[in-house]
Amino acid sequence: MQPAHSFASDNNAPVHPAVLEAITAANAGHVRAYGDDPWTRAMEERFRAHFGPGARAFPVFNGTGANVTGLSALLRPYEAVICAEHAHASVDECGAPERFLGSKLLLVRTDDGKLKPADVVAQLRGLRDQHHVQPKVVSITQSTEVGTVYAPDELAALAHCTREHGLFLHVDGARIANAAASLSVPLRAITTDVGVDVLSFGGTKNGALAAEAVVFLRPGLGEEFQFLRKQGMQLASKMRFVSAQLARLLEDDLWLSNAAHANSMARRLAERVRGIPGVELAHPVQANGVFARIPRACVAPLQASSYFYVWDEAGPVVRWMCSYDTRAEDVDAFAGALRALAQGSSAASAAR
Amino acid sequence: MQPAHSFASDNNAPVHPAVLEAITAANAGHVRAYGDDPWTRAMEERFRAHFGPGARAFPVFNGTGANVTGLSALLRPYEAVICAEHAHASVDECGAPERFLGSKLLLVRTDDGKLKPADVVAQLRGLRDQHHVQPKVVSITQSTEVGTVYAPDELAALAHCTREHGLFLHVDGARIANAAASLSVPLRAITTDVGVDVLSFGGTKNGALAAEAVVFLRPGLGEEFQFLRKQGMQLASKMRFVSAQLARLLEDDLWLSNAAHANSMARRLAERVRGIPGVELAHPVQANGVFARIPRACVAPLQASSYFYVWDEAGPVVRWMCSYDTRAEDVDAFAGALRALAQGSSAASAAR
Amino acid sequence: MQPAHSFASDNNAPVHPAVLEAITAANAGHVRAYGDDPWTRAMEERFRAHFGPGARAFPVFNGTGANVTGLSALLRPYEAVICAEHAHASVDECGAPERFLGSKLLLVRTDDGKLKPADVVAQLRGLRDQHHVQPKVVSITQSTEVGTVYAPDELAALAHCTREHGLFLHVDGARIANAAASLSVPLRAITTDVGVDVLSFGGTKNGALAAEAVVFLRPGLGEEFQFLRKQGMQLASKMRFVSAQLARLLEDDLWLSNAAHANSMARRLAERVRGIPGVELAHPVQANGVFARIPRACVAPLQASSYFYVWDEAGPVVRWMCSYDTRAEDVDAFAGALRALAQGSSAASAAR
Amino acid sequence: MQPAHSFASDNNAPVHPAVLEAITAANAGHVRAYGDDPWTRAMEERFRAHFGPGARAFPVFNGTGANVTGLSALLRPYEAVICAEHAHASVDECGAPERFLGSKLLLVRTDDGKLKPADVVAQLRGLRDQHHVQPKVVSITQSTEVGTVYAPDELAALAHCTREHGLFLHVDGARIANAAASLSVPLRAITTDVGVDVLSFGGTKNGALAAEAVVFLRPGLGEEFQFLRKQGMQLASKMRFVSAQLARLLEDDLWLSNAAHANSMARRLAERVRGIPGVELAHPVQANGVFARIPRACVAPLQASSYFYVWDEAGPVVRWMCSYDTRAEDVDAFAGALRALAQGSSAASAAR
Repeated sequence: MQPAHSFASDNNAPVHPAVLEAITAANAGHVRAYGDDPWTRAMEERFRAHFGPGARAFPVFNGTGANVTGLSALLRPYEAVICAEHAHASVDECGAPERFLGSKLLLVRTDDGKLKPADVVAQLRGLRDQHHVQPKVVSITQSTEVGTVYAPDELAALAHCTREHGLFLHVDGARIANAAASLSVPLRAITTDVGVDVLSFGGTKNGALAAEAVVFLRPGLGEEFQFLRKQGMQLASKMRFVSAQLARLLEDDLWLSNAAHANSMARRLAERVRGIPGVELAHPVQANGVFARIPRACVAPLQASSYFYVWDEAGPVVRWMCSYDTRAEDVDAFAGALRALAQGSSAASAAR
Repeated sequence: MQPAHSFASDNNAPVHPAVLEAITAANAGHVRAYGDDPWTRAMEERFRAHFGPGARAFPVFNGTGANVTGLSALLRPYEAVICAEHAHASVDECGAPERFLGSKLLLVRTDDGKLKPADVVAQLRGLRDQHHVQPKVVSITQSTEVGTVYAPDELAALAHCTREHGLFLHVDGARIANAAASLSVPLRAITTDVGVDVLSFGGTKNGALAAEAVVFLRPGLGEEFQFLRKQGMQLASKMRFVSAQLARLLEDDLWLSNAAHANSMARRLAERVRGIPGVELAHPVQANGVFARIPRACVAPLQASSYFYVWDEAGPVVRWMCSYDTRAEDVDAFAGALRALAQGSSAASAAR
Repeated sequence: MQPAHSFASDNNAPVHPAVLEAITAANAGHVRAYGDDPWTRAMEERFRAHFGPGARAFPVFNGTGANVTGLSALLRPYEAVICAEHAHASVDECGAPERFLGSKLLLVRTDDGKLKPADVVAQLRGLRDQHHVQPKVVSITQSTEVGTVYAPDELAALAHCTREHGLFLHVDGARIANAAASLSVPLRAITTDVGVDVLSFGGTKNGALAAEAVVFLRPGLGEEFQFLRKQGMQLASKMRFVSAQLARLLEDDLWLSNAAHANSMARRLAERVRGIPGVELAHPVQANGVFARIPRACVAPLQASSYFYVWDEAGPVVRWMCSYDTRAEDVDAFAGALRALAQGSSAASAAR
Repeated sequence: MQPAHSFASDNNAPVHPAVLEAITAANAGHVRAYGDDPWTRAMEERFRAHFGPGARAFPVFNGTGANVTGLSALLRPYEAVICAEHAHASVDECGAPERFLGSKLLLVRTDDGKLKPADVVAQLRGLRDQHHVQPKVVSITQSTEVGTVYAPDELAALAHCTREHGLFLHVDGARIANAAASLSVPLRAITTDVGVDVLSFGGTKNGALAAEAVVFLRPGLGEEFQFLRKQGMQLASKMRFVSAQLARLLEDDLWLSNAAHANSMARRLAERVRGIPGVELAHPVQANGVFARIPRACVAPLQASSYFYVWDEAGPVVRWMCSYDTRAEDVDAFAGALRALAQGSSAASAAR
């Protein structure tokens, strides 16, 4: 039996009630399919409000679809994507980028999940050499796969670097809301305003049922995206229901309150596990994920009480994700369970 | 302003209230993402109940995704798909099959949208010749793109032909419910029982929000499908909500009542337009679509009152689709509007 | 035992002695690989001499490679190629275009193997409709797969049509030499001068060992082609030897004498079989192929004496190809053998 | 002006005279195209003689074509290739594997260019997890990109590991001849006999004009390879000329004398540069390549006298390749030039 609120994944959470209400409200009569409907127009308007008047948002079904189709607008197959070694697009999408794009991902090792301009420059090898793929896009994840957040100036430096070298800057924003909430800035402050070209805007982890968007921020991009989305099998027939979810998240700053709550629960969890013997944070807790080294003996018993994933068997480092509906009592109970296990384990160790 | 119930597309209809209730009911607490949840297991069980104990159903987002990923389980890129010239996979999926499969579609001209065994045999050219793609799958649409329905014996004959030649039989069942309702047979009578290998089961046009399934019916197929689905960008993270839609359609025969109603409205529409001057059916009305030749002068004014698509500019032949929520009064008003326009047009003609 | 000179294929012929001499002459010392060598520069110069100063030629290994990589410079995967139903790219390349391009080929039925502007226009459906592939390239074969030749004004009309509609005009010129020889015009008169954008220049059937070229004729095209060629597995390491073959064909008009001879042998064959009972030409003999309906009973015995391919089992229509080394006596002997068989067959028929 | 014999690449060498004679000898009369010819049958027989009676060899044009089409026989797109970070397939094929296979390459860091079983095992993550690509092939290069050679027992250990885990073992043998010569073993001792499944057999660097082969060694593999080769644009029409090259290399052990000579020249070069100030070998010299750290100031002047490539700017490490036609006097002159430059550079340093 799963507990009501686990720390396994922000995808394990249900749909936010307000989003479900928005879906229900959209369920009225016939409208044209495939995006020619009032809900989609309203959604587009919400994106312009948040990301600037030039932003063009296209709803898709899931994060893989958003990343892959968004990248396909920026790349020809002999061009390559520079991304972090742990990028979702590289390790969690079952090779969808390679298959759909035909392109290579150039992987960069990072300590904190974040690419730096020097990492990008180091990949600029073999330029104009016909034997080598040609780097064309830098794709970063915000907030990152290890729960860290790029600051606006870090993003601006990356964008400067990419433009200088004729590259595009793509952001996998499956958790962009958590990043903006963490930084206490508007969404555009870490996207449009710093020079991001294309964004995968994540709705699902933020409380939607299944709703992401590819958002083109640089003028002139995305002209042909409707075809790439369709060919990428990401065009919803009853699109109003996807649009309504996205529009709702962007209304009354629901995206922000959801993300801010998840982030605060992650911080609470980090605080609650501080000082537990054998437990230490593997990365700064800047968004809604907590990555911690914990005693190996605690992993299985803690999973048994409330499931979560091991991020790195070496360590081991575990991953705990908080979501918009995580409750303080869930956090406290979970941290308490770990403390009890760790102390038992520590005592057992000492007794040996 | 669109009328509440148009005849443009069964995709223009809203979500059936019972399906929306099922989504709402699934919105309870945390469950594991990506299909390891009770709703998905229940959905799988519903598919086995309808399609036989060997049926394995995998939810996906849309019809293109169902067709393309389902076909990918059957084909290597040098192998080809035999399908009708007007097959959705060929003309309405923006080349997604070619892009994702890398395979050629071998197109067959048909009068009624239906492939016959002789059509299949005629495509079996260049076998074992390294210069030629190798036919491997016959893909048919049930009910067809022109509103006709394959009878069980027609399907059995096709299945016999495909097995005899070492091919697979794939069914694009975006409107499989309408076909079964039309024939007054269970779903398995036109799939599992007649030798269909893989089915794209359509939920969206039948009243779902966004829910289709790839259903493997031949034992041994689909073992690796989970990877193809993910790589095909069709894996829902909060899968319970897709599963719940499909399960609901297959419960209490909601699929059947929805389809039967849509079919009956199509028959009513066919009857109501019978005898209108210059109007004649282009295809038998066997499912939920009516294809009719109408006076060219009537097209635009009728579209203005209630939008629909022109299927073939030559003719012109227009397409009117009925859905689970089409009302008799919608049909009668629409037919009445056409009658008035046609009589006016006919009178104008006569007066010239 | 194969006869020294069969009519099965112009690919069955050996390498022209002068081409082999050119290869041998290039076999001198070390030069840089992959095209940075004097032979390649000389070859490029020969192409400019024949096709105009803006022509950019890139050697590749074979015709499929030339067609597919050349098209890849013109297309994104959601864009489509309009071509004749019997186009080599569609029926003889085992789906390489679909696999490498990810694009759909839109097939046009033709009587004579030649596309007309009206055929192109008829394919311009679903423009800007996200459900449909977007036609982008018209690809024709010159001379065609059935031995006919586009006249310069036919090409100009096609080029006018393609430019008018924002399409590219691509020519599969596996037998472009035979077309130019047939028309008694320079190569540029049926390519650069009439508005062809990209050409697959065929060397192998014209006497080379293995040498084709992708030739970009429209300024601005092909800037990135070096990457497409490499990614398309068509970059020769010891490129000097491919370049030397192409340069030699374009020197002293060897291409022309080879093609003119092959054409004249085809005309001779057509004349020699004229009047044989039950034999009639299926297409005008304008290049180096003869397509003829012959009595079914003659096919196997004639193949036994000198192998050739049946082009269309219905008919049957057979294909006889002449090459640069076909001898008049081969033609006469072959025609004589057919005459004898046909008269025997006719006598047998009459006797029944 | 390039010297007659540079150390830039074994691809810069001309065609071995005996291979050119074999091409010339094959230039006799008409034979069937595409491999149905006596030269191809003779070549197949030579491969069986060298690799065992179950070996099935398919000629292709180049090394990229051999690697990519050979791998395509072993993989579905969601399956991955484990290879060394510097593998030719990863860094020198402009993304052809990703584009044609749709598959991900999983890169392993190595010191000496060689994968070990532990490296393979470390990549076996996410097995049966739908989010992750599934490792299916281990691809190694023999001799490696840095001039090292896998010993038979190292290969046997890798093959044992791959079979144990249900993987295939693929060898990029662009320089397989150099490896066998280095080890003084027959070709089958480092392929068939140790459990290699598929081999890219390299002819071009060993003295051919353009000839490689995909060789299936494990029974049951390659049944469908003819289609993959054609779809991969690697099917030569006048195949006899490719086959004749391969057959000649495998006759009278020409492959061996060519490779042994190149290897011995590399060893001589390594000896001649030993003790030059600031020069040290970066890798053991086991085949025909010498990788050395040299004073940065020497690079440009030495390249000016005889061009070669810098392998790693850090160092810098340079690459010198010997070929079948490298002469002892070339080696000695080149080493002498470096010695003079290095001593000058060293003296200049000392004087500062």
